[in-house]
Amino acid sequence: MALIVQKYGGTSVGSPERMKNVVRRVAKFKALGHQIVVVVSAMSGETNRLIGLAKEMQAQPDPRELDMVISTGEQVTIGLVSMGLMQEGLKAKSYTGAQVKIITDSAFTKARILSIDEQNIRADLANGYVVVVAGFQGIDSKGNITTLGRGGSDTTGVAIAAALHADECQIYTDVDGVYTTDPRLVPEARRLKTITFEEMLEMASLGSKVLQIRAVEFAGKYRVKLRVLSSFDEEGDGTLITFEENDKMEQAIISGIAFNRDEAKITVRGVPDKPGIAYQILGSISEANIDVDMIIQNVGVDGTTDFSFTVHRNEFDKAMDILKNQVQSHIGARDVVGDNKTAKVSVVGVGMRSHVGIASKMFRTLAEEGINIQMISTSEIKISVVIHEKYLELAVRVLHKAFDLDQEPA
Amino acid sequence: MALIVQKYGGTSVGSPERMKNVVRRVAKFKALGHQIVVVVSAMSGETNRLIGLAKEMQAQPDPRELDMVISTGEQVTIGLVSMGLMQEGLKAKSYTGAQVKIITDSAFTKARILSIDEQNIRADLANGYVVVVAGFQGIDSKGNITTLGRGGSDTTGVAIAAALHADECQIYTDVDGVYTTDPRLVPEARRLKTITFEEMLEMASLGSKVLQIRAVEFAGKYRVKLRVLSSFDEEGDGTLITFEENDKMEQAIISGIAFNRDEAKITVRGVPDKPGIAYQILGSISEANIDVDMIIQNVGVDGTTDFSFTVHRNEFDKAMDILKNQVQSHIGARDVVGDNKTAKVSVVGVGMRSHVGIASKMFRTLAEEGINIQMISTSEIKISVVIHEKYLELAVRVLHKAFDLDQEPA
Repeated sequence: MALIVQKYGGTSVGSPERMKNVVRRVAKFKALGHQIVVVVSAMSGETNRLIGLAKEMQAQPDPRELDMVISTGEQVTIGLVSMGLMQEGLKAKSYTGAQVKIITDSAFTKARILSIDEQNIRADLANGYVVVVAGFQGIDSKGNITTLGRGGSDTTGVAIAAALHADECQIYTDVDGVYTTDPRLVPEARRLKTITFEEMLEMASLGSKVLQIRAVEFAGKYRVKLRVLSSFDEEGDGTLITFEENDKMEQAIISGIAFNRDEAKITVRGVPDKPGIAYQILGSISEANIDVDMIIQNVGVDGTTDFSFTVHRNEFDKAMDILKNQVQSHIGARDVVGDNKTAKVSVVGVGMRSHVGIASKMFRTLAEEGINIQMISTSEIKISVVIHEKYLELAVRVLHKAFDLDQEPA
Repeated sequence: MALIVQKYGGTSVGSPERMKNVVRRVAKFKALGHQIVVVVSAMSGETNRLIGLAKEMQAQPDPRELDMVISTGEQVTIGLVSMGLMQEGLKAKSYTGAQVKIITDSAFTKARILSIDEQNIRADLANGYVVVVAGFQGIDSKGNITTLGRGGSDTTGVAIAAALHADECQIYTDVDGVYTTDPRLVPEARRLKTITFEEMLEMASLGSKVLQIRAVEFAGKYRVKLRVLSSFDEEGDGTLITFEENDKMEQAIISGIAFNRDEAKITVRGVPDKPGIAYQILGSISEANIDVDMIIQNVGVDGTTDFSFTVHRNEFDKAMDILKNQVQSHIGARDVVGDNKTAKVSVVGVGMRSHVGIASKMFRTLAEEGINIQMISTSEIKISVVIHEKYLELAVRVLHKAFDLDQEPA
């Protein structure tokens, strides 16, 4: 008997019919003697519908009130799924984030989980209940309803699995696992049976939208065994995210090609090359709650340097505005330039640690197609480049082929 | 400066446009220097949409889970209305029933308010906020979300007005006040400028769907000044529900004709005429949470009596089933008969206390139209009769005319 947390996304609970599929799957696991906690998202389309209503009322919806409104999406789903479970003869009980209590900070629309009180859930499980928890939401110390931001339901699932020391956290989604790259772009892409936690982190952060990065980080921190599966496929084992590299050593050097279409790059030029400058530039960006992805600073020339970073394309204008009007003159930079017609492509794999030549192979492959590399950033297990967005698909395809990702590893 | 609680029903907040009307009205009162608490229902149609989803998942939706689902309707509205108020430059803050805290018992789908903690609301009002509270919902002592039953938002409004000792509780609805009878049935029906609390109680309980009876009871208990107004009419003063009869004494004997189309009558025949029988019959009905309206027991003959009562038409089958299968043989009754093709018509007025002949005038008027009276029940300020439902409209029209309700009182 295992304790399993199953998280189902918006498309998996998109209609009463689909919720009944979820119910049948839960019933199957329950019949095997497992204890099950189900974490669900809002029905697909519901969150956007609610945001639409909010924008009709207020041009820039107040974050606290927006969370009040959109958190209802998951609350509806938990009630409906619990009813479905009861209809199948199971005992079921739903909890909102506030009821669990999932305590978060007060950063409305992008709150972070601070603690989870798992007492009630544990008691219900012991009494034979399937416990159904609303993903994506929590409550702050003052009792305000908060949400964790888009994709936050994954984080809820992992956090609850961590709090309960669950045997496995299963993330059901509309894809049947993690692929070597997006199969819509490269039909030859293969599903990975396992991927290491670090690789998954890179794949997730780089735009493989299978799992939210915060969920993967959370899983890593609390060593939650995470499995990505399709809610539409009864048989598949999905992709297991492992913490050991051992069984990977025989496998390919590279696990996959990740990419992100929504990357915009910004360069602050002619920055005085002295301590504290990076903080002065990024501090103001971070205070505006803009997430920064790649950060690059090259060695300076003539006492000045260029400082580049990338942000989500939606936040490009806001970031440019802050830098030009608040930061540039303050730090004595020469210029701020940006480009939101960029994309990021990365090769990811723990295997590259012990292999030289990955970077040169990547750069040569792109050069052979005439693709100019605008920025480069590397870590121990990935190499990322920023290129013009028009080359994105081509770059992913040629890299996937160059690293033999369409072949099963020997 | 007054403290005013304004309650807006589902049609008043049925769309973003209508919510903006509510916002404008609130802003107008705020500009006059008043402190405002707004209590809102779910957008019209929303509760039924959610119940529909629930029934797709479970034939008889679990009450706890149903409350979980339908309470989201008001939660969406409070967020949206608060956003609208902010868009107009006002300070606004929303509260769910749980956040207020509106503590109820645990009778899901028909919970009763036990207490209200008005501290946070009071503090927000003092700080210049318009406070927007979700009607219809609360939380029980274990933290489960409860709802107060259909129309419960009125009760929330009055309960909050009572807790805050508000100067007035304004109930905005789609009619502009309380009428002598339903104007859809009798075009000559007049709006009453005032009505006594007791009359309102009878009018509400008898099916004038303007205000929920529990709200009126609550208002009476805590002496909350209640006013019914139209949310679509900028000018009208609506109908004020008063606690004094003095200014009524010059007015008509009868205030209005109330009626209820959804009445079903049940008679338990040949019941042994001994103590405890009424309890044995109604106890089982009440345990099944079926509300009983009229109850009549005539003097017995030959040691047995007939015991009649009325229930809502929707609960007729359930009540008949309980009586036939659980009660009849147990108490030694001869038979249980019922009829769900009945309706109730009542004349209501505090004036009848000091006037004889109201009953005979009522009965004569009905007799002249050939309408058979099946049951009669009276109180100090009303006389109710049960008739065949096909005569309902006719009965209301002729009684309205017979008591000169189409004329302004002298």
